[in-house]
Amino acid sequence: MIAADDILTRIRTQKPVVHHLTNWVTIYDCAQILKSIGASPVMAHAPEEVADMVGIASALVLNIGTLTSDFVDAMKVAACAANQKGIPVVLDACGVGATPFRDQKALELLTAARINIIKGNASEIARLAGRQVTTKGVDAAEVKDNLQELASTLSGQFSAVVVITGREDLVTDGRKSYRVANGHELMTSVVGTGCMAASVIGAFAAVEADWSLAAACALADYGIAAELAAMHSAGPAAFKQQLFDSFYSLTSAIIRERVRIATATA
Amino acid sequence: MIAADDILTRIRTQKPVVHHLTNWVTIYDCAQILKSIGASPVMAHAPEEVADMVGIASALVLNIGTLTSDFVDAMKVAACAANQKGIPVVLDACGVGATPFRDQKALELLTAARINIIKGNASEIARLAGRQVTTKGVDAAEVKDNLQELASTLSGQFSAVVVITGREDLVTDGRKSYRVANGHELMTSVVGTGCMAASVIGAFAAVEADWSLAAACALADYGIAAELAAMHSAGPAAFKQQLFDSFYSLTSAIIRERVRIATATA
Amino acid sequence: MIAADDILTRIRTQKPVVHHLTNWVTIYDCAQILKSIGASPVMAHAPEEVADMVGIASALVLNIGTLTSDFVDAMKVAACAANQKGIPVVLDACGVGATPFRDQKALELLTAARINIIKGNASEIARLAGRQVTTKGVDAAEVKDNLQELASTLSGQFSAVVVITGREDLVTDGRKSYRVANGHELMTSVVGTGCMAASVIGAFAAVEADWSLAAACALADYGIAAELAAMHSAGPAAFKQQLFDSFYSLTSAIIRERVRIATATA
Repeated sequence: MIAADDILTRIRTQKPVVHHLTNWVTIYDCAQILKSIGASPVMAHAPEEVADMVGIASALVLNIGTLTSDFVDAMKVAACAANQKGIPVVLDACGVGATPFRDQKALELLTAARINIIKGNASEIARLAGRQVTTKGVDAAEVKDNLQELASTLSGQFSAVVVITGREDLVTDGRKSYRVANGHELMTSVVGTGCMAASVIGAFAAVEADWSLAAACALADYGIAAELAAMHSAGPAAFKQQLFDSFYSLTSAIIRERVRIATATA
Repeated sequence: MIAADDILTRIRTQKPVVHHLTNWVTIYDCAQILKSIGASPVMAHAPEEVADMVGIASALVLNIGTLTSDFVDAMKVAACAANQKGIPVVLDACGVGATPFRDQKALELLTAARINIIKGNASEIARLAGRQVTTKGVDAAEVKDNLQELASTLSGQFSAVVVITGREDLVTDGRKSYRVANGHELMTSVVGTGCMAASVIGAFAAVEADWSLAAACALADYGIAAELAAMHSAGPAAFKQQLFDSFYSLTSAIIRERVRIATATA
Repeated sequence: MIAADDILTRIRTQKPVVHHLTNWVTIYDCAQILKSIGASPVMAHAPEEVADMVGIASALVLNIGTLTSDFVDAMKVAACAANQKGIPVVLDACGVGATPFRDQKALELLTAARINIIKGNASEIARLAGRQVTTKGVDAAEVKDNLQELASTLSGQFSAVVVITGREDLVTDGRKSYRVANGHELMTSVVGTGCMAASVIGAFAAVEADWSLAAACALADYGIAAELAAMHSAGPAAFKQQLFDSFYSLTSAIIRERVRIATATA
């Protein structure tokens, strides 16, 4: 039995600090989604302080959406500090495949430190796994490969949990896999729903040591909040507001009623 | 007959990638307004990747709201790449007139590359056209000059479409001119409505080769969305949310009913 | 009689420009809250222009939420220019106590220029006053010291108005003190309510020369807007939207009815 409600309850009780080095587009939303679920987000990127900030954090979330070389250098410092402390490091491979620079920097991050959870849409993960992709910037492009195989390949390569978001989300740690069917199509009309997913995964992994389970439950709960939000939304902006608020007041009963996580052997 | 509805339909079908180098205040809103109309926004500013990002884009939007020297240098690289590719470059002259540095950097951009559409409020455009203005930061200050003349002067100087936003928007390419009467006063109480206008113009110019027509139609559709949004808004924040959502669901029938674009010879 | 309504009226009439060097998380909200009350926010951080931007401003707000060394250097230039001009400088000591770097940079700012209003939550102010604190990033940690004493100590040390935000806000200039009981618990579930408070204080101090009075009235009016916003909010995101809009339409009658400022000798 997967405890998607239990992990959320732990977040609300423990209020884990989740340190971010993220992009300037959705930085507010990454913080607010965590605040909405009871976690304590902190955003800081000065190279002089990122290691210390990791020192008070229970998870680290990296997002390269608006990366620069210096910013990625600070990410490396933070990730190494997180590795030493043993807290989970999530990488949102935002926009990988769009430019060679982005691909290179993502790979630098993956080799400079241990990234525990790699998250992307289908084309981002395909690119990280070495496939050629044609992307449209930060939006997912079509990928012909078998996604489960792609995820397993990448997972094995970096000993990481791999998360592919999409109509159905896929999570694998190389041994066990999950498919999460929660969510709503309106998410694709809102900037930042992918980034927020990575932040939520970070918060779940902060309080649950089984990181693939944590990621699957994070995506399920987030998707359920989105389903509830979509019920009363005239468009993407109303939907986003409701997403924060439905996640804020999400109950264990509703989670147990709506959760759609399927398990499988990888 | 001006096809303000037709261009919007093309955006929804073609989903053009619009690359931004914009400010940190309204960067989310610039992205979300494009997402709301069906375009695919991408924000990236690392000098190593901006030219590549232009390579997958159909328009480039530059906004100097929170400029630095390095950031403007990256803009120049992006703009030159856009010139080579032949995609439209929009410059939002945000805050020009407020400081000499801002004026200088805007002029550097205008000379380093071909800017196809220059957009600003009355005092920003007046300053670019060489007039002395007294501004209040990023809000429009009073300008005594004839706006049509100012726009024509600047248009001739840089062979660009010039857009002056205000109670009535003015668009000219030196040969033909448009006046757009759509919009709502609440827009002046919301941070970012000017920035979003530039992004919308970029998306329209991405799919319509007549850039002055594209700009006029962009402002009309955006203004119509604002008119609809204002109908049910208790204040600026509710209004902004509705603006995204009314633009998201704007129909051709409503556009044809409400569009207020007047044409004139420049 | 404390004129919490009168100062707001002055802002709406005079529309003061409030220059910010703030963090990338809540930069939009800091701007929009000022726009909502009728002030004219401007955000700019290029070292080449901050002094000139201060030249057209009536107050300066500094927030170190996502600080870097370069950014703090620009803050120093801006603060010195503001000192020379005689306009109030507000420092939001965002996240002080979380890392040694942050503590050091805050102290550098306090010694490089005259900071007129120092604002923080209990643990941030305790740290600035030399106490050891254990923080959770940017959220307030428990402080055992007497807050009034802490505020007075810090006020004396830097000849500044000191503001401690919390369930009850505390304002002191060393001679007179205020306690502000307005506000709502939902504020703690919204990212940026602290940052916005500093911006509002900046706008109030821009039009009222008695800066401790200005700060107290700012917090009261902001808190009243929050109280009204909470009445119709299903969660933090709806609440934040209503906060902007209730402040936008706040009347003098409502302020006089709800204001809860208590005065005391420091």
